[in-house]
Amino acid sequence: MPARGILGIFILLRGAFGSRKSVFRANVRLEFVVAQEEKKFITKKSENLSQWYLDVVLGCELADYAPVKGCMVFRPYGWAIWESVRELLNRRIIDTGHVNAQFPLLIPESFLKKEAEHVQGFAPEVAWVTHGGGEELGERLAIRPTSEAIICHMYSKWINSYRDLPVLINQWANVMRWEKKTKPFLRTTEFHWQEGHTAHRTHDEALEEVIRMLHVYRDFAQEDLSMAVLAGPKSDTEKFAGADKTYTIEAMMPDGKALQSGTSHDLGQHFAKVFDIKFLDDDQIEKYVWQTSWGVSTRIVGGIIMMHGDDSGLKLPPMVAPVQIAVVPIIFEKSKALVLEKAAALADALSKLTVFGRPVRVKFDASEQQSAGWKFNQYEMMGVPLRVEVGPKDVENGTVKVVERVSGDKALVKVDFGDIAFDAAEFTGRLEAAQRQLFEASSASLAERTHEVSNIEELEEIIANNKGFAAAPWGGTDADELAIKERTGATVRVLLSEIKDDNIKCFYSGAPARHRAVFAASY
Amino acid sequence: MPARGILGIFILLRGAFGSRKSVFRANVRLEFVVAQEEKKFITKKSENLSQWYLDVVLGCELADYAPVKGCMVFRPYGWAIWESVRELLNRRIIDTGHVNAQFPLLIPESFLKKEAEHVQGFAPEVAWVTHGGGEELGERLAIRPTSEAIICHMYSKWINSYRDLPVLINQWANVMRWEKKTKPFLRTTEFHWQEGHTAHRTHDEALEEVIRMLHVYRDFAQEDLSMAVLAGPKSDTEKFAGADKTYTIEAMMPDGKALQSGTSHDLGQHFAKVFDIKFLDDDQIEKYVWQTSWGVSTRIVGGIIMMHGDDSGLKLPPMVAPVQIAVVPIIFEKSKALVLEKAAALADALSKLTVFGRPVRVKFDASEQQSAGWKFNQYEMMGVPLRVEVGPKDVENGTVKVVERVSGDKALVKVDFGDIAFDAAEFTGRLEAAQRQLFEASSASLAERTHEVSNIEELEEIIANNKGFAAAPWGGTDADELAIKERTGATVRVLLSEIKDDNIKCFYSGAPARHRAVFAASY
Repeated sequence: MPARGILGIFILLRGAFGSRKSVFRANVRLEFVVAQEEKKFITKKSENLSQWYLDVVLGCELADYAPVKGCMVFRPYGWAIWESVRELLNRRIIDTGHVNAQFPLLIPESFLKKEAEHVQGFAPEVAWVTHGGGEELGERLAIRPTSEAIICHMYSKWINSYRDLPVLINQWANVMRWEKKTKPFLRTTEFHWQEGHTAHRTHDEALEEVIRMLHVYRDFAQEDLSMAVLAGPKSDTEKFAGADKTYTIEAMMPDGKALQSGTSHDLGQHFAKVFDIKFLDDDQIEKYVWQTSWGVSTRIVGGIIMMHGDDSGLKLPPMVAPVQIAVVPIIFEKSKALVLEKAAALADALSKLTVFGRPVRVKFDASEQQSAGWKFNQYEMMGVPLRVEVGPKDVENGTVKVVERVSGDKALVKVDFGDIAFDAAEFTGRLEAAQRQLFEASSASLAERTHEVSNIEELEEIIANNKGFAAAPWGGTDADELAIKERTGATVRVLLSEIKDDNIKCFYSGAPARHRAVFAASY
Repeated sequence: MPARGILGIFILLRGAFGSRKSVFRANVRLEFVVAQEEKKFITKKSENLSQWYLDVVLGCELADYAPVKGCMVFRPYGWAIWESVRELLNRRIIDTGHVNAQFPLLIPESFLKKEAEHVQGFAPEVAWVTHGGGEELGERLAIRPTSEAIICHMYSKWINSYRDLPVLINQWANVMRWEKKTKPFLRTTEFHWQEGHTAHRTHDEALEEVIRMLHVYRDFAQEDLSMAVLAGPKSDTEKFAGADKTYTIEAMMPDGKALQSGTSHDLGQHFAKVFDIKFLDDDQIEKYVWQTSWGVSTRIVGGIIMMHGDDSGLKLPPMVAPVQIAVVPIIFEKSKALVLEKAAALADALSKLTVFGRPVRVKFDASEQQSAGWKFNQYEMMGVPLRVEVGPKDVENGTVKVVERVSGDKALVKVDFGDIAFDAAEFTGRLEAAQRQLFEASSASLAERTHEVSNIEELEEIIANNKGFAAAPWGGTDADELAIKERTGATVRVLLSEIKDDNIKCFYSGAPARHRAVFAASY
């Protein structure tokens, strides 16, 4: 799905002021220069991340604003990234023994009110359905902000015996939280996610599940999205409304803000007790189940965009890139038929390769509405990992030019255009390398943006200058945490290793430290 | 995902009345007899289709009722069928050049009101959001009953030039229509579907798309779901609210009622004009686009259930069966270790086979909570196409017993348990055959249930006795159609071949016939 919207308009505008003809008369080299100039229309990432982000989201046609406040439209290119994310994460969820199901969109108000903390946390953000089928409803229905309430109701019907446990259900769904301040992908009123909801016989088994899914999320982020994350528990003030404990993966964005990218909750027996989810154990005693829930949302697509891109636009990890290789023929009238034929045959052969266990996703762009140079620029902006240029000289010489989006490297790769033979690793190996390189860059950036601090002034300096994570021994109270938040804007993003040595003191309160805590401002 | 709920409860009940111990002491043969008896708890399909349907939906744990009126929960086994349906249909949609996107759940009331027929058709069924984020909204928001209104709004932003056309977008989404009378899968307040929305430069091109998607639906139903359908246009009284013309695929259920299973609409320029979707054509004239929309929903899962099942429960077409082969070890204490090992190895080898272009979906059921006989019965009820029984004698003799759900045939198939070698076609060939056999049965049933009628009395008799489709030359007016509906309960389901010979007269009005029309009562 080419994103010709914005750049297309720029070319038309240029045309209106006299330079359009030269674009169309120009040879590839000249056009390439013109196209390079056009890149200025994307704000530089290094100058203004926030504006760059919006430019890229709209310019690459990842998303558009919807007419309902805070909602967005996922355009085909953006939705295709989410579809890849979903497929990869779903495989990990299924491989760890879960099954998918689908629960209703609407939740009766009385259900939501059953768990006190839960309703307090979510009620202010709920969208309410009050009328249906031409009549006012007897009870308001919430569009699910999360599905614990409705799922627990069903579990109370389905779970009777220890033989029914564990229940390991996941759903992919849309949810809605009425947000005041929104940003495409990162915070939207409606978003898409998966939410896992499990019920167990013992607390130990539930805790094992919470940590299992935290690790699934960490590995997924790092291996599939090339996104380095910190993983661990949240502090009590930051936990999910209705949970005993929340675990999180946190990524660090280039502007020094943390992005919570997935959470896994130990729900204890809070919901089991209010929804009456009991089972007869093999000792003939009736017990409440132990529950977990865990979720990753479309917000993570915002993280992918922000984490990896550069001044030229997106850089997509090959595992989630809707197009992994763009094959662009360089067309001159004389050699057109031959070049198109050979480039098409190459694209076809490339699409039969396998990478990351799946067929390579190839786009063969033979459109004549845009020049090759315009396309080079376009695929660069859209973050396509490999661009393969096929010109008449290439066909003659038995080579193609392969340009790597992540490293910027260019290489001439041998292709026998007689029977379209080539070394597959020249392409798949480069895709695998790009996946690794992005992760290495993300890891390095995370390390660079993590700073040890020994007092509140140092923490304040880190946050005020958008430097990233501030890590320190921590043993403060909820009130201390609030005071730090009010003074610096930073919260505890994640508690890393536990500290058992009473001689190590909290950087803030001076009390014995319990954890190495990581503070940051956040999205 | 085993469905042990209902049958499990029956066994417990039996236990309470003294027979449970005998079940647990029994050998496989006795248990099998007991299990056979339990089948009585599913109403016979031949006796009461409607009750059989509900028994199967609940007993196989395909779905459950939700606490919001008319909504359902898709339990894992039922959702897995929909996931297969979705994957198969999605592939056909992508292969015909479409891309997926995702539009918002909520539509402002003013948008819905723009197209007069559209709002008249859908407004009575809409669920309205009136409050969000603790405040009353300035404008009511509809939970989408279908997405034309919101998508057309976006298209008016995105489409400017003939170069932007065609737009070929599909979305998989949940929608909501406040239904008075509901039935799991077949008619529910919330349902899931795909809705394609395309925009074209010419009416001819749009018409081509409408027919292309009608044929995609027909082939999908017949080839992937083994469901014979009639395909063609609807009469004007039955078309989609806002369309120029609606095309449909109609299946015939065993109770003589038609099930509309997919529709493809020629929207003309109705929406383009009210949403102002214009493009500058290459003749420099501004024109409105021509649009289509088309959809298939979770209702089709209800069709699969009803079409193929029998007195023993579900019969699932192998292409959509969540489990294609159930491997059941027959366990005796002495040979347990060997049988479990060999059966597991066989299941593993089977899951490495490919059928219909995908890995075979195998369930190895080693659970010791239920006997082999109970499992045989269970997988029969759940419609698993092949059951493979592995007992100690089998391991000794180098055979397994393969039981086909569709034909009921049983065969001894050779397996070398030394290196787990076997003829793959003994398994994949049987799955392919089952897929064909179900379609053949469905086709035969459709033919049997289609009756030529030559007057209204004959039509009335067909409908009154639930005999199925009544076909006749048709040239009546809308008023004639209404009169027939009032008299018989039947509507024109689909118009088949056009009739151009003026000597052929309408079976009802005596006017020259225009089509061969097919009437039926419907879901």
